[in-house]
Amino acid sequence: MPSGWANRSLLDPATAAHRVHSFARGVEGLGSLVLTRTFATEFDRLARRTGPLCVGIDPSSSLLNVWDLPDDAEGARTFGLRVVDAASETVAVVKPQAAYFERFGWSGFRAMQDVCSAAQAAGLLVILDAKRGDIGDTSGAYAQGYLGPAPAAFPIDALTAVPYLGVTALRPMFDAARASGRVVFVVVRSSNAEGFLIQTATSESGRSVEGEVMVELARFNASDSEEVGAAGAVFAANTARPPPAPLDEMKGLFLVPGLGHQGGTVDQVAQVFADCPRRVIPSVSRGVLVRGPDVKALRAAIARQAGELRAALSW
Amino acid sequence: MPSGWANRSLLDPATAAHRVHSFARGVEGLGSLVLTRTFATEFDRLARRTGPLCVGIDPSSSLLNVWDLPDDAEGARTFGLRVVDAASETVAVVKPQAAYFERFGWSGFRAMQDVCSAAQAAGLLVILDAKRGDIGDTSGAYAQGYLGPAPAAFPIDALTAVPYLGVTALRPMFDAARASGRVVFVVVRSSNAEGFLIQTATSESGRSVEGEVMVELARFNASDSEEVGAAGAVFAANTARPPPAPLDEMKGLFLVPGLGHQGGTVDQVAQVFADCPRRVIPSVSRGVLVRGPDVKALRAAIARQAGELRAALSW
Repeated sequence: MPSGWANRSLLDPATAAHRVHSFARGVEGLGSLVLTRTFATEFDRLARRTGPLCVGIDPSSSLLNVWDLPDDAEGARTFGLRVVDAASETVAVVKPQAAYFERFGWSGFRAMQDVCSAAQAAGLLVILDAKRGDIGDTSGAYAQGYLGPAPAAFPIDALTAVPYLGVTALRPMFDAARASGRVVFVVVRSSNAEGFLIQTATSESGRSVEGEVMVELARFNASDSEEVGAAGAVFAANTARPPPAPLDEMKGLFLVPGLGHQGGTVDQVAQVFADCPRRVIPSVSRGVLVRGPDVKALRAAIARQAGELRAALSW
Repeated sequence: MPSGWANRSLLDPATAAHRVHSFARGVEGLGSLVLTRTFATEFDRLARRTGPLCVGIDPSSSLLNVWDLPDDAEGARTFGLRVVDAASETVAVVKPQAAYFERFGWSGFRAMQDVCSAAQAAGLLVILDAKRGDIGDTSGAYAQGYLGPAPAAFPIDALTAVPYLGVTALRPMFDAARASGRVVFVVVRSSNAEGFLIQTATSESGRSVEGEVMVELARFNASDSEEVGAAGAVFAANTARPPPAPLDEMKGLFLVPGLGHQGGTVDQVAQVFADCPRRVIPSVSRGVLVRGPDVKALRAAIARQAGELRAALSW
């Protein structure tokens, strides 16, 4: 049993307070919950109430303009806090996109950190979409910063990663995620056409690149006593090609990008993940974010999308 | 002719001041230089004096410990500023590794920004090793934050990137780099064994993945009027396999990671890049950084390595 959430709570009073705050709604037996929760168990608990939808937090220039906010770090922070407000109690997960914050340098990075903290405090799971990854010691540094061990510098529950330098080069990130109850979502299949050439190339062993990546993720998860392991996959549902391997065998969670925009329809998502519908976290960003800045209107748009997915993915 | 350096200087007085400071040493005709310089032209100018060595700035826990510095953002800043001090006038380029700064959250990110500013002010070219990359609009946000157009949020001259989501998905980053005279170094061949499986997989067209990536970089550079284009490659020299295409045909710069540690020997570098020795930027990190914290000792170690490379790569 991963004990990281416990470590984090015991060692970092500030984070623990956030967590207690988020646990405090709707659950009893807090002590044992703190000791046993992982991203997967918490997602399962939250999704039973809200469905599995993840709302992206993408303070792009164009969306800040739509929301009549300044195109700077403060605008990005305000944008993020409002999305958190609209998403809280409405969905299980939010996904800040690092690029839109980092474009403002360190003050944007600070705004991103504040938004992630606020999301955790509101009881949301936070996937930071930063697509990090490197080799050996450097992956270890990303692990230290984003995935624990407790207390982690960055208030998130999961991180996206890219495998071009090899899945096993990300191992320190997987290990840290497992130890802290977090998840690393490695990009296996992206939603854009440009990813096709690399992701479908054939390796020495005869498998596709995306197949090789999935095998490595499955291998890591197989070594875990948890039902759902710390190695997750970013896997788009909008391409016609069949999955490289039975998806339920990965024993991990799937983050499905860009629902309704570039990641596929609700029906496609349900169909691709028919064998493991409750391990899927479909994400929507622009499709609902354009409904802001009014928080009520935004929440209503999110709730509609959440309801549709809840039914389609058997929650 | 890329006019970005000019834009940057005209629009951002603070950055321009740094640049004037760095130009002011050893050059005349400042006005026209500001209008015509790109990363490649500046690298050529600097390397004639120092050779092509790039010094990594890796404030890892273990190196901060060796340097008797605290393992926090302030320690990382102090570490970085001392490396800049030792590298200034000794080499052409420095390469801060983002992971080692980001592990401290936004205060680490701010320290990284300060170190990059100081390096530019000291006349060094700065490659931020952050391995960013995403699709479409998100790559555009990374472009905005790290590669201009002027004034860019982040004081760097080049950025590393990863191509798993497709090289053409990085296009906004290439365009911004070209417009501002900067370079995007895309990882083609990494120095670690774990990268082999993906990088050598065979695409639909019969080329290896690393070959596909290089072809795309070459295609972008071919559309440039500059002799050396804005699309560069990270290309390790420590593997036995031959390059996927003649390296000089890429019309771009090569960043060679981890000299002496995981990236190959000086002889290997000279041999692999025999056709374009003066487009190569070999990088060394731990190999010299362990010689600190004494700045004189560190500078001496850097100078020795720089001298060796200068001869081997025909500078």
